[in-house]
Amino acid sequence: MFDVIPTIRFRKGAVEIIDQTRLPLHYTLKRIRTVDALCEAIRNLRIRGAPALGIAGAYGLLLSVEERWGGAKSFFFDDVDEAGSAERIAGFPADARVSDLRRHLDSTLEAIRATRPTAVNLSWALERMASVYRRDWDSPASLLPALGREAFAIFSEDLEMCRALGVHGAALLSDGDSVLTHCNTGGLAASGYGTALGVVFAAVEAGKHVHVYADETRPLLQGARLTAWECVRRRIPVTVLVEGAAGSLLGRGEVSCVIVGADRIARNGDTANKVGTFNMAVLASRFGVPFYIAAPSSTIDARVADGSGIPIEERPADEVTVIGETRIAPEEALVYNPAFDVTPHALITAIITEKGVFRPPFDFSKEGG
Amino acid sequence: MFDVIPTIRFRKGAVEIIDQTRLPLHYTLKRIRTVDALCEAIRNLRIRGAPALGIAGAYGLLLSVEERWGGAKSFFFDDVDEAGSAERIAGFPADARVSDLRRHLDSTLEAIRATRPTAVNLSWALERMASVYRRDWDSPASLLPALGREAFAIFSEDLEMCRALGVHGAALLSDGDSVLTHCNTGGLAASGYGTALGVVFAAVEAGKHVHVYADETRPLLQGARLTAWECVRRRIPVTVLVEGAAGSLLGRGEVSCVIVGADRIARNGDTANKVGTFNMAVLASRFGVPFYIAAPSSTIDARVADGSGIPIEERPADEVTVIGETRIAPEEALVYNPAFDVTPHALITAIITEKGVFRPPFDFSKEGG
Repeated sequence: MFDVIPTIRFRKGAVEIIDQTRLPLHYTLKRIRTVDALCEAIRNLRIRGAPALGIAGAYGLLLSVEERWGGAKSFFFDDVDEAGSAERIAGFPADARVSDLRRHLDSTLEAIRATRPTAVNLSWALERMASVYRRDWDSPASLLPALGREAFAIFSEDLEMCRALGVHGAALLSDGDSVLTHCNTGGLAASGYGTALGVVFAAVEAGKHVHVYADETRPLLQGARLTAWECVRRRIPVTVLVEGAAGSLLGRGEVSCVIVGADRIARNGDTANKVGTFNMAVLASRFGVPFYIAAPSSTIDARVADGSGIPIEERPADEVTVIGETRIAPEEALVYNPAFDVTPHALITAIITEKGVFRPPFDFSKEGG
Repeated sequence: MFDVIPTIRFRKGAVEIIDQTRLPLHYTLKRIRTVDALCEAIRNLRIRGAPALGIAGAYGLLLSVEERWGGAKSFFFDDVDEAGSAERIAGFPADARVSDLRRHLDSTLEAIRATRPTAVNLSWALERMASVYRRDWDSPASLLPALGREAFAIFSEDLEMCRALGVHGAALLSDGDSVLTHCNTGGLAASGYGTALGVVFAAVEAGKHVHVYADETRPLLQGARLTAWECVRRRIPVTVLVEGAAGSLLGRGEVSCVIVGADRIARNGDTANKVGTFNMAVLASRFGVPFYIAAPSSTIDARVADGSGIPIEERPADEVTVIGETRIAPEEALVYNPAFDVTPHALITAIITEKGVFRPPFDFSKEGG
């Protein structure tokens, strides 16, 4: 098995996450027992990254059943190596009806979906779960194991997906390459392996030497905090830089390619990702440096024709004006804090998914190369 | 008199500065009595900004005389409204020779010059002072008042220069404009009025409404901390954003122009300024937003043909990896921290100086328009 970070797990009736706001100084596992607490964790980015959010959404629905009808024992699987089992449902209240469950899950689903509007994976995973619980079940005892299995599948398919994506992407890297990346797209952003950073991991596992340049990624510094931590953990050489230095770095000719993740990809290839991605794409294009997106195919939102149709979440001002405990801007200053930006497809060299590598003109209905 | 910040003053034998590392939370005046302490203040950016560094250099030479031969009373002027006077020199040791003074000043000059290699104004001001003390003086009593007057002139000419630059630049702004800027180029970066931000101040003083977008400017956050503070202080509406959001902002069409300062300008117009400036110039060019440099003509280094001849200072890693008291990246991560970048002249719409507005092809031997 390749090296996996326990970013998010469903264990013993609770969602267990690494609290990413505390890295790199503190590695803390946090057990989450209520949907409210899960929504807080998502909103405050204790768990973040598009694929990880999908898993959090699916597990959140399991959690809501535990929270509402929970007995002494969980109704669902206890750990990653065990799928849901019908025996666990024995403790489920006999008078609860499928329609009660559905109503409850529907309302939980909307609460979770509202936490982060841009990442399509969250919505995608919730819809997968809904398509299970909205089927015509004759009893909770038949619905619940299926629901557990679906959530587990979303998790385990993500692991496989990241691995496949990594292998496709690694073929684009050569021994000795330097990769500039933005935000965090490693194991912490997914089920434990990663998307854009997973490409680097796969290349390293294939014996290639790769140097990572990690854009620190303000305001929340996921590059400096999380990407650097993951690289150090895997003994991959990593250099942190402020975003303002990315132009200089690209101009020095020392970057082989840029690889970043995605929160949503439109049908034409326009890609929403962490704010600052667009700047980097423009700079890469100026210096002729290949600019790759690496994301699961579930990030492609076929309902959206182009980038103008992607909603961009604006986040609270104090993400920008307060660092740790320290206020860095006057109270009276206004703040513009979009969490994402859209990179037009014309600036994208290729989109790497678990299905293969797509090149312009992007047509995701065909197989990737 | 227009509104001036007491960024740096020579008072009662010491250099008094606003400690800019403590803004915006704490407004602290710091009295500096030794050249070592002044060099520390420059290296640690307690005083920064190209024109302010020129003044700090000049005042540093006065300070070195006070420190070496100092009596109870300063040899130089006591405040901005008083030039140096021969009477003050009465207490200067009778046995000190002009050659002693020169040797001492030469060694101080090199120590101060070495603190910041990129900003040409520092070197320029030091050379102005040297051209005074290297003349053929018959006694310290004749040299010292001339030295005091030269330092005072460097300060007071900067005030006039900023004002003239502001008026030239303000003509480029219309009522209702929004200006995106980078780093801090206000009164704190100069004698008290400012260069790029001085253009905004001059426009506002001329009755125009201007909205400032302040790029926070990592790693040291001069935009969020200092530019926002200066705007709030003058009741100019200001919005802070992370550098990653500049592309989105420019793409929204809400920025009328970008105005930034300069640390050194080559003969062909290539301009070194705070790291991140180049990124912004590339983005502005993409969206057809005018990109202006605003700097005193002393920033133009006629000895340098183009940007490749400008040395770029690399600064300590912990500027990036530690914010306040908090470490944000793992100890094991490497850091790339250039303090400046070079914007090629082709991306610059105009260079605003106190002598007028220069447009491409840049020829600084002619009058500005």
